[in-house]
Amino acid sequence: MKKVGVAILGLGVVGGGTYKIITEHREFYKQVYGVDISVESVLELRRERALELGVDENKIASSIGEVCSNPDVDIVVEVMGGVEPAKSFVLAAIGSGKSVVTSNKELFCKYSHELEKAARHNKVGLFYEATCVGGVPVIRAMLDNLQGNRFTSITGIINGTTNYILTKMSNGGASYDQVLKEAQKLGYAEADPTSDVEGYDAVYKLSILSSLAFHTKIPYTEIYREGITEISPLDIAYGKRLGYVIKLLAIGRCGKNGIEVRVHPAFVSKDHPLSSVNDSFNAVYLTGDSVEDVMLYGRGAGAYPTGSAIVGDIIYCATHPQHRYSPFDNTEKAKPNTKFIKNFSGVYYIRFKAEDRAGELSKLTAIFSKYGISVAQVIQDSDIADIQKGKVPLIIVTHSTHEDAVNKAVAAIKKDNRGTEVAAVIRVI
Amino acid sequence: MKKVGVAILGLGVVGGGTYKIITEHREFYKQVYGVDISVESVLELRRERALELGVDENKIASSIGEVCSNPDVDIVVEVMGGVEPAKSFVLAAIGSGKSVVTSNKELFCKYSHELEKAARHNKVGLFYEATCVGGVPVIRAMLDNLQGNRFTSITGIINGTTNYILTKMSNGGASYDQVLKEAQKLGYAEADPTSDVEGYDAVYKLSILSSLAFHTKIPYTEIYREGITEISPLDIAYGKRLGYVIKLLAIGRCGKNGIEVRVHPAFVSKDHPLSSVNDSFNAVYLTGDSVEDVMLYGRGAGAYPTGSAIVGDIIYCATHPQHRYSPFDNTEKAKPNTKFIKNFSGVYYIRFKAEDRAGELSKLTAIFSKYGISVAQVIQDSDIADIQKGKVPLIIVTHSTHEDAVNKAVAAIKKDNRGTEVAAVIRVI
Repeated sequence: MKKVGVAILGLGVVGGGTYKIITEHREFYKQVYGVDISVESVLELRRERALELGVDENKIASSIGEVCSNPDVDIVVEVMGGVEPAKSFVLAAIGSGKSVVTSNKELFCKYSHELEKAARHNKVGLFYEATCVGGVPVIRAMLDNLQGNRFTSITGIINGTTNYILTKMSNGGASYDQVLKEAQKLGYAEADPTSDVEGYDAVYKLSILSSLAFHTKIPYTEIYREGITEISPLDIAYGKRLGYVIKLLAIGRCGKNGIEVRVHPAFVSKDHPLSSVNDSFNAVYLTGDSVEDVMLYGRGAGAYPTGSAIVGDIIYCATHPQHRYSPFDNTEKAKPNTKFIKNFSGVYYIRFKAEDRAGELSKLTAIFSKYGISVAQVIQDSDIADIQKGKVPLIIVTHSTHEDAVNKAVAAIKKDNRGTEVAAVIRVI
Repeated sequence: MKKVGVAILGLGVVGGGTYKIITEHREFYKQVYGVDISVESVLELRRERALELGVDENKIASSIGEVCSNPDVDIVVEVMGGVEPAKSFVLAAIGSGKSVVTSNKELFCKYSHELEKAARHNKVGLFYEATCVGGVPVIRAMLDNLQGNRFTSITGIINGTTNYILTKMSNGGASYDQVLKEAQKLGYAEADPTSDVEGYDAVYKLSILSSLAFHTKIPYTEIYREGITEISPLDIAYGKRLGYVIKLLAIGRCGKNGIEVRVHPAFVSKDHPLSSVNDSFNAVYLTGDSVEDVMLYGRGAGAYPTGSAIVGDIIYCATHPQHRYSPFDNTEKAKPNTKFIKNFSGVYYIRFKAEDRAGELSKLTAIFSKYGISVAQVIQDSDIADIQKGKVPLIIVTHSTHEDAVNKAVAAIKKDNRGTEVAAVIRVI
């Protein structure tokens, strides 16, 4: 029977899950796939963590060099996170003829071109299903199933922490700060939550997914980014009245005018399948020119779901020795002539703290009209709990318009400071 | 550049869609996959249909022999449906060294063991993503992504016609017969709808999907089957009051007591992601021991979505010459010692047309109690539109119990014929 030795770099949450899946399923994989997969080496500074998991003492490596020179290791699993030393370790593994499976979205997003070049040069595999959306089978689906499609759109809820926070805010009416604290206590948010709540994590993933979808590298620096820290319970409540649910969306669109890539909070209509993706669940909604709409839904994070993606890559690597790379462009930059659209089009929800005086609404709509924005819906009421002194909440939902026009209208309203303030601008998908 | 010639057997809806996808994307596939894929032959008796689609006259074959002896054909796409002559044609293609891509669920479900044996013997590929759930990437996901999991459960809405009918019945309150007629007019149901509405189509697909999920052949004859023809608007309305939506479900479960496979209408809680899969959309909800819950959602039928699955298989076949078969058992029968559970457990919704007299409810619950069934919920009201003379609708929802117990209780109530009738029994998932 073919033997495949695995090394795991980092026994954190995902590394530990991966270790357990491989060891617990060893007989199963022998029986079903005819391959004996075993963990032959781990690189983990916290020796006691490795021992707790049941790793044999003589399989705990003390350096990446030791892993790379171990002839029993065929595949190196990198689950350390961050750029360095992960990058050097991955390149060392590739250089010594090991295939690599990684869950490191930041590393892969920023350096996939270097890693893939090295992998091709050394004729080893490089797999990265676990970089995006945990256990949800999105990358393999795009590579080996939906690959006959030209994708026009990809819309995802691809960060578990922010979806957990927004779901709790929507259900309970609590503020962002309250829910964040709770999420940190429960382990759903990190002590420093910046990468999640400011959208960086989603940006890395969207860069990888949209590069695959649109057949050109989408550098993460091209992706518009806005986090969820400013979302207020008041907007969530008004959204509900309008039939919307708030989500942090990662959006990629590809049309004849160019490519549009962005991560920001957005209102999603209750009729859209993404609107019922709650808590720490994630989903990716794809539209292709043949398949039409497809949604892939599941656990976007966690030891076992992400471990499932890693082990899927390990078995694929072990059983598909000829098929190890992406068939897509993987350069540092987008293809020449790729045009990135920054002036997004869409519907906008705008909440004002308006002066409570006659003619205020007509004044605001006149400014919108000046910038070519037509108003679809207005909510104005005085019986809302948090009315500020002398001001009333006023909501305007536009018809489809452009980002630039909205920005100009908002700037004009701010400049014309007669007391009415723009309290929130939220895109509607 | 590698050239790959395709033959299409049957230019019906799916065959036509496949033809169009291949021809419209030819340059795209050359560019992205480095393979020149073209349709080199079609077998279609309606010559004018082929010409309408733009097939070159000299590429219209007049017999399967002509297709098989055509040296430009590498891959044969079988989209004819039915067992014969499809089976003979597929075996002829395999025998002459062509790989086969099929969308034929009945053929593959019943004869996969013969087809795979022939494919292995002739060292050609055999692909069948399009047999199940149209464009939804479920088979490739199970083979090449989630393959490290032991699946405990698979629950699917895998027939578009019945989901369309049940959605319309739920939205409009119309009867089954009315909606069926409408669906036939719109092309969502066939003139003879038996295969869809009686659940045969779903049974074939569940046989294929559960065989993959549970690593043993699940003969379709082992699958319990019940169609949707008896579903009444009244039950749909009561279901709504209870927080349920009616769906035709295909269910496979694998646990230590055995395997349970069944296709029947069921009430799904509104909180479950499957409850919002509407119209002709389909979805498969999988639970694996590592990945936890995954749902794959999309168009379960149609020229382009099913064509997308076929073309995905064609490109995979063209670019993965070493990987052509299922890594799973594919025998005619289940593995020895496989135990099929027939006495399902679960919650039951039972509607009575009850005699309107004192003590009737207590009499019924006494019978349930006798068979060990405990009652979770009762609805009894007299203001329902369709009260029959002297009878009132009475609904009992049980706690989790067993099918045998429910059948015995229902038989006892029928036997004890004091006027109260059992009008509907619907499982709740």
